[in-house]
Amino acid sequence: MRQAGRYMSEYRTLRERYSLLDICRTPDLATEVTLQPVRRIDVDAAILFSDLLLPLEPLGIPFDFIRGEGPAIETPLRSEADLARVRRFEPRESLGYVLEAIRQIKRALAGRVPLIGFAGAPFTLASYAIEGGHSSNFAHTKLLMYGAPAAWHRFCDTLADVIGDYLVAQIDAGADAVMVFDSWVGALNASDYREFILPHTKKIFDRVEAATDVAPIARAHVGAGLDGAGVPTIHFGVGTGSILGEMRDAGGDVIGADWRTPLDEAWDRIGPDRAVQGNLDPTLLLGPLDRIFAATDDVLARAGGRAGHIFNLGHGILPSTPVEHVQALARYVHQKTRQ
Amino acid sequence: MRQAGRYMSEYRTLRERYSLLDICRTPDLATEVTLQPVRRIDVDAAILFSDLLLPLEPLGIPFDFIRGEGPAIETPLRSEADLARVRRFEPRESLGYVLEAIRQIKRALAGRVPLIGFAGAPFTLASYAIEGGHSSNFAHTKLLMYGAPAAWHRFCDTLADVIGDYLVAQIDAGADAVMVFDSWVGALNASDYREFILPHTKKIFDRVEAATDVAPIARAHVGAGLDGAGVPTIHFGVGTGSILGEMRDAGGDVIGADWRTPLDEAWDRIGPDRAVQGNLDPTLLLGPLDRIFAATDDVLARAGGRAGHIFNLGHGILPSTPVEHVQALARYVHQKTRQ
Repeated sequence: MRQAGRYMSEYRTLRERYSLLDICRTPDLATEVTLQPVRRIDVDAAILFSDLLLPLEPLGIPFDFIRGEGPAIETPLRSEADLARVRRFEPRESLGYVLEAIRQIKRALAGRVPLIGFAGAPFTLASYAIEGGHSSNFAHTKLLMYGAPAAWHRFCDTLADVIGDYLVAQIDAGADAVMVFDSWVGALNASDYREFILPHTKKIFDRVEAATDVAPIARAHVGAGLDGAGVPTIHFGVGTGSILGEMRDAGGDVIGADWRTPLDEAWDRIGPDRAVQGNLDPTLLLGPLDRIFAATDDVLARAGGRAGHIFNLGHGILPSTPVEHVQALARYVHQKTRQ
Repeated sequence: MRQAGRYMSEYRTLRERYSLLDICRTPDLATEVTLQPVRRIDVDAAILFSDLLLPLEPLGIPFDFIRGEGPAIETPLRSEADLARVRRFEPRESLGYVLEAIRQIKRALAGRVPLIGFAGAPFTLASYAIEGGHSSNFAHTKLLMYGAPAAWHRFCDTLADVIGDYLVAQIDAGADAVMVFDSWVGALNASDYREFILPHTKKIFDRVEAATDVAPIARAHVGAGLDGAGVPTIHFGVGTGSILGEMRDAGGDVIGADWRTPLDEAWDRIGPDRAVQGNLDPTLLLGPLDRIFAATDDVLARAGGRAGHIFNLGHGILPSTPVEHVQALARYVHQKTRQ
């Protein structure tokens, strides 16, 4: 996660000339940035360089990124009427530049590693649209969720439709796997997750599954889509220790876990029939190599060599991370797991 | 938590004339603000109005509050040398104004409800001192923790000494219970908590226990200090679902749980020999009364009438909360639990 970004000098150089949105909206630039970490780090997959918020603009919710402060929605949605004003759109038209980037990246990769596409999940997208940016408490979002549940559900249903279509379009353009980011859904407890989120996130996974040609029954028999049949889906959030079982029920061949829950405990909550992605604390990558390797040993020991463990960070790489630490981590994981 | 604050008009009126630090440092004002919610809401305890950061100044880490942005440390600690520069201090001298406020509040309360004092725990205090304010990832803090463990431990040991003394001084001044806020420690996993935090937080609880005259064995027999023998201690954090057992081992007659973990599950992790405080989502208080009451019913059902449940929010009251909702919640809990 955030495999490409400010911790790499070649990315910072590009950012001197182009904004984050310029890069996302220009397939040549998105391709270049997506490939930067693939050239420098021994990763097993390329991750589409893009931004969770791109679907907001065609939904009728314009935004920008303020340097040093993150995303800023021009007019946050704060009422039932605001929620009702969002419009469905056709991702193949409005987000065609992302799909073109995917096609270019796939050509450039030439089969070297697979490409993972992604999109934001309803709670996380809704929280940006309603809070207007980052939030520590999601007060506006929850006020609408609790106070206007019918409008909330209609809004999230719209989000689920466009995100489902968007992910299918990414797959059609060449993405080999897709990840659904519900980064902030850990702010909810299990009961609220079931009521307000699960049906919508499930709709996204059902849509992707229906479009990718492998019947659910076959899928269950082929080891969670990990042997190449169908297109694997990944479902990720942060601080989700209490709702891993609910996220699993919403969908995803692979469930992401952050570093707060030990990997074996997380897997117990998720269940043995799903793959698990995780879960090194990304702040460890700032620190001394012996700490990185010791914590990596712990993650690998807890995975216990089970099929279906995708070694990963529990959240995105921080801008102040030395690239040498990321390189060393990738080499170390390969050395340990290929023995 | 944040029982007094911006959601009350009488507090906002005072804040037009006085800064947050003025109020904390002026016993008459701290007394007035502490009593404001006791007058308006049917609460079972008064909570000292103060701020977690007050000990930073006598430690040699000056700070201020920037309106709308929260705390700002003038020169954040970023190196081993910075950590080594903090100085121990005598809370009875440097924080005498807090102790005077406690004496005034106790006189004003005249036994109507008990008074809860508090202080910040090492991780949370360290994170403010090192990050310089609020943080979403605690990158600087963890960099020092992982990268300079000896300096980290010496720093936290100093914090534990002064916080332990400070809480004992609060009890001597009249506090009937004390709460240790490790608000942000949920950013750590259990393994890091055990290594970097537990010994220091335990030192605080041991210090308070040793000073409050009830032998540990007697304490275990009197129902976690809740029948009036000794001074009950409360240990609180947010997002701590994965480390509740470790926090319990660090200490506290009462362990706080936020809304992410259902109360019965939290209690299972904490163990039956401790009391539990929690765990309504404070954002619910913004919302419709029927939602507040339904979620309250769920918390009470999960507590199952067990002795040692302290009904509370899982985190602080938000500034936009209607005071009528807080009043209605307190009445509702009393009505349900006194039946």
